[in-house]
Amino acid sequence: MMTFPPWKALADAKCQSTLNTIPSKWRIQEPIPPAAELRDVTGSYIQQFLTPREIEITELDAFDIAEKTTTGEWAAVEVTEAFCHRAAIAHQLVNCLHEVFFDAAIEDARKLDAYFAQHRQPLGPLHGLPISLKDQFHVKGVETTMGYVGWIGAFQGLKNDARQGVFESELVRELRALGAVLYCKTSVPATLMSGETVNNIITYTTNPKNRLLSCGGSSGGEGALIALKGSPGGFGTDIGGSVRIPAVFNGLFGIRPSSGRIPYEGAANSMDGQNTILSVIGPLASSAGSLQLLFKAVLSQQPWLYDPLALELPWRSDIEQETRALVEQSAKDPSKLAFAIMKDDGVAIPHPPIARALEIVEQTLKRLGHRVIEWTPPSHTTAYELISTIYNLDGGADLQYHLDLSGEDPAEQVIVSQKLPQKTAIEIAKVNVDKREYQKLYMDYWNSTAELTGTGRPVDGVLCPAAPHAAVIPTQYLHVGYTSFLNLLDYTSVVIPVTHAAKDVDVGRPREFVTELDERSFKGYDADVYDGAPAGVQLFGRRLQEEKMLVLGEYIGGLTQK
Amino acid sequence: MMTFPPWKALADAKCQSTLNTIPSKWRIQEPIPPAAELRDVTGSYIQQFLTPREIEITELDAFDIAEKTTTGEWAAVEVTEAFCHRAAIAHQLVNCLHEVFFDAAIEDARKLDAYFAQHRQPLGPLHGLPISLKDQFHVKGVETTMGYVGWIGAFQGLKNDARQGVFESELVRELRALGAVLYCKTSVPATLMSGETVNNIITYTTNPKNRLLSCGGSSGGEGALIALKGSPGGFGTDIGGSVRIPAVFNGLFGIRPSSGRIPYEGAANSMDGQNTILSVIGPLASSAGSLQLLFKAVLSQQPWLYDPLALELPWRSDIEQETRALVEQSAKDPSKLAFAIMKDDGVAIPHPPIARALEIVEQTLKRLGHRVIEWTPPSHTTAYELISTIYNLDGGADLQYHLDLSGEDPAEQVIVSQKLPQKTAIEIAKVNVDKREYQKLYMDYWNSTAELTGTGRPVDGVLCPAAPHAAVIPTQYLHVGYTSFLNLLDYTSVVIPVTHAAKDVDVGRPREFVTELDERSFKGYDADVYDGAPAGVQLFGRRLQEEKMLVLGEYIGGLTQK
Repeated sequence: MMTFPPWKALADAKCQSTLNTIPSKWRIQEPIPPAAELRDVTGSYIQQFLTPREIEITELDAFDIAEKTTTGEWAAVEVTEAFCHRAAIAHQLVNCLHEVFFDAAIEDARKLDAYFAQHRQPLGPLHGLPISLKDQFHVKGVETTMGYVGWIGAFQGLKNDARQGVFESELVRELRALGAVLYCKTSVPATLMSGETVNNIITYTTNPKNRLLSCGGSSGGEGALIALKGSPGGFGTDIGGSVRIPAVFNGLFGIRPSSGRIPYEGAANSMDGQNTILSVIGPLASSAGSLQLLFKAVLSQQPWLYDPLALELPWRSDIEQETRALVEQSAKDPSKLAFAIMKDDGVAIPHPPIARALEIVEQTLKRLGHRVIEWTPPSHTTAYELISTIYNLDGGADLQYHLDLSGEDPAEQVIVSQKLPQKTAIEIAKVNVDKREYQKLYMDYWNSTAELTGTGRPVDGVLCPAAPHAAVIPTQYLHVGYTSFLNLLDYTSVVIPVTHAAKDVDVGRPREFVTELDERSFKGYDADVYDGAPAGVQLFGRRLQEEKMLVLGEYIGGLTQK
Repeated sequence: MMTFPPWKALADAKCQSTLNTIPSKWRIQEPIPPAAELRDVTGSYIQQFLTPREIEITELDAFDIAEKTTTGEWAAVEVTEAFCHRAAIAHQLVNCLHEVFFDAAIEDARKLDAYFAQHRQPLGPLHGLPISLKDQFHVKGVETTMGYVGWIGAFQGLKNDARQGVFESELVRELRALGAVLYCKTSVPATLMSGETVNNIITYTTNPKNRLLSCGGSSGGEGALIALKGSPGGFGTDIGGSVRIPAVFNGLFGIRPSSGRIPYEGAANSMDGQNTILSVIGPLASSAGSLQLLFKAVLSQQPWLYDPLALELPWRSDIEQETRALVEQSAKDPSKLAFAIMKDDGVAIPHPPIARALEIVEQTLKRLGHRVIEWTPPSHTTAYELISTIYNLDGGADLQYHLDLSGEDPAEQVIVSQKLPQKTAIEIAKVNVDKREYQKLYMDYWNSTAELTGTGRPVDGVLCPAAPHAAVIPTQYLHVGYTSFLNLLDYTSVVIPVTHAAKDVDVGRPREFVTELDERSFKGYDADVYDGAPAGVQLFGRRLQEEKMLVLGEYIGGLTQK
């Protein structure tokens, strides 16, 4: 007789309870074809479950929706119901939700409509806009499990904690003040330390464009839900790529801001208090304009008055305008803007779809007349080794503690080791110095490019892969170095969708390997399985360059998506 | 026969070598009266060694000197020579210098004069202004010992390091680019972790206003030198009060900015890499206007392009102007500005001179019609305990390592314990969370005062002691909590001179004790010994409020010094 571990009944009940919260009218009755038969459930597949009006509403981006909901053209209730419905369908297709609170959302939307009716103006710039949240944010009346079975029925693992069910994270408070409608929380890998989204509650979240593949992680539910247009935009977190990986795996835009811009106060986290590399919050959406809307809206709430780690740095319209002016001038004189490109990091050379995505961007920029120099930075191997050390400072103790609450095992995709020795204060101080010295080297290298750009400035941005592969084959995520080096540097990075893997074009050809990891990565490429997966690039800038990177991300995204 | 420890000859030779660098024409020939006979060596005492022209030059503040040197009215060489001479005298009176490089300074000044002659404009806003530096900054051609005997003939304790004698700290590079003239480095306590300035090289730096007392620490040499007008302004560092303590002990202005404004890159430090509380750099000077000049000048160099820990936060003229406007409006309508006052922290009640200094400020503000509310913050005992834990994360290992290089013992004034167990990663993470939670509590308390001020805003600034006592009797510094809680909060704090201890007025009267430490502190008060010691206050504001606090510090300083 087969036996199950004791935590499994609890996990299964939680999974079922999430599903049960979806109204029966929105439950899919017919069987969903297996992934092998039907990879792509976006577009016409998901549309079959929706009304034309629901499709009209949900297929606009957040920016365009907000234009309608903040002007009273569309009612918050109608927009919210449409997204609740589409999110419900999305969850049934790819397993992307942890928490569903549609009733509360519709009630909130009703109040927003009443507010608008009374004041003839919106509550804030996100009035009536549904926003999804990674399951690290506390929302009143709703649980936060962060994928841990041991957090079910508790507050961050604590039983009988007074905050349970009533506490809200600072970002949640601000989103409500801005007029956003909160309606669901999305799936994450337990521990958060994984580029795929897998946990013992909802199991595995798949990629809506190709369900044989991963939706990415750790903000994977966000990526999958937004790709299915079950949300116009949402907030994830990123300590090593966890916003950018799901964004790029799902053909979306996403930003990893530098630390201190979006308030983390009161959100659940892994390894809380590890402050060598801080996790940061960033939005994901289907357009760069939507990211700007969300980012700017949050800053308008002055998070630095409510979060001790937030910086007093409002949205800098002057930088936004200067960058827009540069972009406009560069239409006449393309030498006004200069980029760099890093085709690989010397650790793992990208698979053909990613190399092609980069090539598309590079050729487009060059055809327009922009200078694109080669990026030859300080060793990324050094960065990768440092990051691996930093993720393991506590020897896995924090993750183990939370896994042990239920007795569950970590997924094999978790990149942090368990039961290693902890580092001591002196060892951690040494790591902090090594990190700072690496940042200084990189900074000096950045400055040195002023000699090469022809603009009189260093490069305006650097293009590189966001991962060695498109949306990855489950368990094949071998190298997070393309995203995590930017966490080490605390640089701003925007992910830009470019193209999709195409088996006829993206043929793997024999080549030399630069590392053993590179060889394993190469062998993991399967043109047929990857076929159809979104493939994008990263654009990064220096620390605290969010205004500039969002505008340049919009520019480059606009070029390559034409 | 008396034996000396093996490091003593090295230390004495270093001490003598610093003295020998002073030209013989500037050596004081006659005996200097002992402190018991002559406490105060400022004013007419030091003036006797100087020419009237040297007195004229050196008794202006940095702001006024820069007005003359940046317009060509005064030559950089003449100004530099005057300060070199006065610094040389100051050192012979109170032991305040570690490094003397007058020849290089005069050569630099000569180049600046040539630059001005050629371009008819200054190199930068500090053109021709002599600036002193705490002995943590590396200056080419000069040693950095930071008070450690084991650092003599080495680079931060490393023998045969290629940086020795050639490397310069980022701030030094920026000061040179601004036109400042560097000419000496000032004394510090070995380990830096002390509110007094004592080390085995130059022994003890005394307070120029009362040589029975301490000049403060750890930027003690700065405080003593500037008080003697041997420097118009200088830069110290502060992880627990090390800029503010010497500023307040010497009747000066000093600012502890929030972390990330003034570049620390490339400066020597204690416990480098401990990043729970970062040491910060701040200027000391005899006027608030001089602090503004120095602070603003450094920011004009865009330190965030050269220091990975510096924030992209230029001098915010809008905040400066808004604050100046508030101050001006408050002349007509004093309710426009509101302050809070914290007379004690519940750990150690201030001695009479400090209580009186606070009373003077409070009464002045109230007489002008400003609202001054009582500050009843979250427990400062909690803050003090947290800070003590943070200073000891490595169990004293870093300090011990550097002391062991020579075999010297730490001074009894060092506040960090040696040879305790190190904290582990999980314990440090817990401390970081505790710190953040305390910051959040304090922030929420700050916000709550909007209900009490009548301005519609929270308080504009908070006044409190900078120490329980005036310039302290050696070995009697028992409680650094009045400064260090602001390092824990990462708040901006400006020290403002107010008055001097006066034995006839500042009489200790029996009272109840709030803690055992309070009782010891009370018993350490001796009205006669403290007589004449400078007594000032702290004005603090939220994190990253340097522009506002410098303007308000100027305002309050101007009121109380009238």
